[in-house]
Amino acid sequence: MITLASDFGSPYPAAMKGVLCSHTDAQLVDIAHDLPRQDVRAAAFWLRETVPFFPPAVHLAVVDPGVGTDRRAIALRVGSHALVGPDNGLLRPVARRLAVDGNEPVVAFRIRTDDSASTTFHGRDVFAPAAAAIHEAGVERIAAIEPTDAVVGIDPLSLDDCVDLSFPEPTLTTDRAVGEVLVVDDFGNAVTNVPGEWLARHEADTICVNGDRIVVADTFADVAPGERVVIIGSHGYVECDVNRGRGDDAFGLAATSAVRFVRE
Amino acid sequence: MITLASDFGSPYPAAMKGVLCSHTDAQLVDIAHDLPRQDVRAAAFWLRETVPFFPPAVHLAVVDPGVGTDRRAIALRVGSHALVGPDNGLLRPVARRLAVDGNEPVVAFRIRTDDSASTTFHGRDVFAPAAAAIHEAGVERIAAIEPTDAVVGIDPLSLDDCVDLSFPEPTLTTDRAVGEVLVVDDFGNAVTNVPGEWLARHEADTICVNGDRIVVADTFADVAPGERVVIIGSHGYVECDVNRGRGDDAFGLAATSAVRFVRE
Amino acid sequence: MITLASDFGSPYPAAMKGVLCSHTDAQLVDIAHDLPRQDVRAAAFWLRETVPFFPPAVHLAVVDPGVGTDRRAIALRVGSHALVGPDNGLLRPVARRLAVDGNEPVVAFRIRTDDSASTTFHGRDVFAPAAAAIHEAGVERIAAIEPTDAVVGIDPLSLDDCVDLSFPEPTLTTDRAVGEVLVVDDFGNAVTNVPGEWLARHEADTICVNGDRIVVADTFADVAPGERVVIIGSHGYVECDVNRGRGDDAFGLAATSAVRFVRE
Repeated sequence: MITLASDFGSPYPAAMKGVLCSHTDAQLVDIAHDLPRQDVRAAAFWLRETVPFFPPAVHLAVVDPGVGTDRRAIALRVGSHALVGPDNGLLRPVARRLAVDGNEPVVAFRIRTDDSASTTFHGRDVFAPAAAAIHEAGVERIAAIEPTDAVVGIDPLSLDDCVDLSFPEPTLTTDRAVGEVLVVDDFGNAVTNVPGEWLARHEADTICVNGDRIVVADTFADVAPGERVVIIGSHGYVECDVNRGRGDDAFGLAATSAVRFVRE
Repeated sequence: MITLASDFGSPYPAAMKGVLCSHTDAQLVDIAHDLPRQDVRAAAFWLRETVPFFPPAVHLAVVDPGVGTDRRAIALRVGSHALVGPDNGLLRPVARRLAVDGNEPVVAFRIRTDDSASTTFHGRDVFAPAAAAIHEAGVERIAAIEPTDAVVGIDPLSLDDCVDLSFPEPTLTTDRAVGEVLVVDDFGNAVTNVPGEWLARHEADTICVNGDRIVVADTFADVAPGERVVIIGSHGYVECDVNRGRGDDAFGLAATSAVRFVRE
Repeated sequence: MITLASDFGSPYPAAMKGVLCSHTDAQLVDIAHDLPRQDVRAAAFWLRETVPFFPPAVHLAVVDPGVGTDRRAIALRVGSHALVGPDNGLLRPVARRLAVDGNEPVVAFRIRTDDSASTTFHGRDVFAPAAAAIHEAGVERIAAIEPTDAVVGIDPLSLDDCVDLSFPEPTLTTDRAVGEVLVVDDFGNAVTNVPGEWLARHEADTICVNGDRIVVADTFADVAPGERVVIIGSHGYVECDVNRGRGDDAFGLAATSAVRFVRE
């Protein structure tokens, strides 16, 4: 199985799929191709929140504002998963999550290319051929891939030499959590970096969010349609949401917005 | 085969796909993940208009404004099809259509869960594991599923105890049809609940729509680009459309708008 | 394998997929369903730029403003590829590209139908059944399909009798290229019809685009974020782009806009 994720919109992912299908019969599963455009941090969040639900597979992920520069093309192996994409931090949070879940190390590789790739579409010319070659060789034999297209080989690489990316950590005290919005999802839910455990400890009926008192609930329908609610969302983080509406609009929040929860 | 339909947008469907792929090798086919958000009636329409074209399969459908409340999770078996989703009426129109098409009864089941599911994402935590388990057991042996994730079993349920949902019926006389818009599709076609047979009987060249005289045609291209046209659409209903344009804008119609056709 | 491309948006492609799955176990791969709506030229461009990356397959493509008129339904065979869709020019550029790539002729066929198809949704009622039947018969035996649904047979047809479509050619001199924008992609890149080879010959650092002096670069990141750049894009054409932004907005260009490159 090869999963695909990108910020390519449409129809560029089809060129990647064509390349993949030309080199392998692997089942292709789209994760998303509308990841926040050229927003490596948000894309890294969504990869971390979706890829670990899959069985072992090759995961091709491309959000790549540095395409055509000398940023590396890399593959990270974690157990029987392989992550393939640009070396810009995109793959690090999901690799860390897979490593914790599976109690496995993250092993890094550099994808070596020749000059035949375009300078603007490495998804098609580098990452898709590399993902197909890794799938065909088997994740355990990642360095034994057959050269194909612009991909000429895979070499060991120190993980420390790869670009890292971490999400900001909130400041937590018993009564306060000061954090920020990691992403706004398609529903308008503002997902913060405050862990659900912090909120769960308080068993409060309401909490102050940036100065407004808001109901704390277990589920959207605990408040009336259109009403704001603070909830522990499906990612395990505290979210600022609206029942049947958009939390981002109602709370005035966007990705990276500061958010301060104060227990009353 | 497992089909997927939801109002989740992107990338939440990927978490459902990951869960499915972790439990089954079934082929996955996306129906849509941009069903009208939290609009159970419109989503039920689209399920009824797409699912019956598929061969027997497990159909996972989630438009679920009541997620986390005590609304039931259900499965409806119709012949060799199984529909899996929330008990909010979403699955009833398509089940009825499959029952008529196949001359089969609709048999209802309750999906029993434990407390390990999230309160906000039953697509991932309840419906996807249930759909995978039903696929693996076989639709005919739906009640013999293996427990998995938060799904602990499936019990018989009276269909009469399930939430029902019907589309509004038009009022038809020889010369008049008074109905409403069921949905506006992606092209802007306003699909009404007036059956095509009513219009077909008249063989009229024009008809009054909410007071305006409009050409009746067999196909879009029978009128000039940008011109309004009344047509029997691909769903078998009378539609208010525009050739190469949006009928909803040109007619001033939206879902649930009243529409009155008068034969001249 | 059957690939699918259309301007149907959502969820109409699901009805096509259901019909396909009812007639064949072929792997289905979506190319795109948001091709520029009813814009045959732009859709033909995107087919030409994506389909050739696939291995031999049946390619179902529907952008069909003339649905229900007497425009023909056709299939074009090029080697082991078959293209299925309306006879409105949509399939001609990709057929030509496949023919050049594979040194194969384009062989045309007419898909013969009876009156049971709808007048508004031939994707579901004609093209999907035809694509499935061709897949099952085998592309090499395309004229030996089994009748199915509204499709009753496939007959030879002269390619000269099929509607043709060509992209406009630029006027090139040593110092000037006068062309137009073929498409604007999802990133906002304005892809012109000026071949990359023309630009590559000059090795210039800047070029005048409709009067403005613009940096010529190999890759987006060669200019600052938000800055305009002229680049040879992944299609092999000269593009007017913005690093991490939209070239169409910054250059004031849209599909069919005139564009004049002058070497300084």
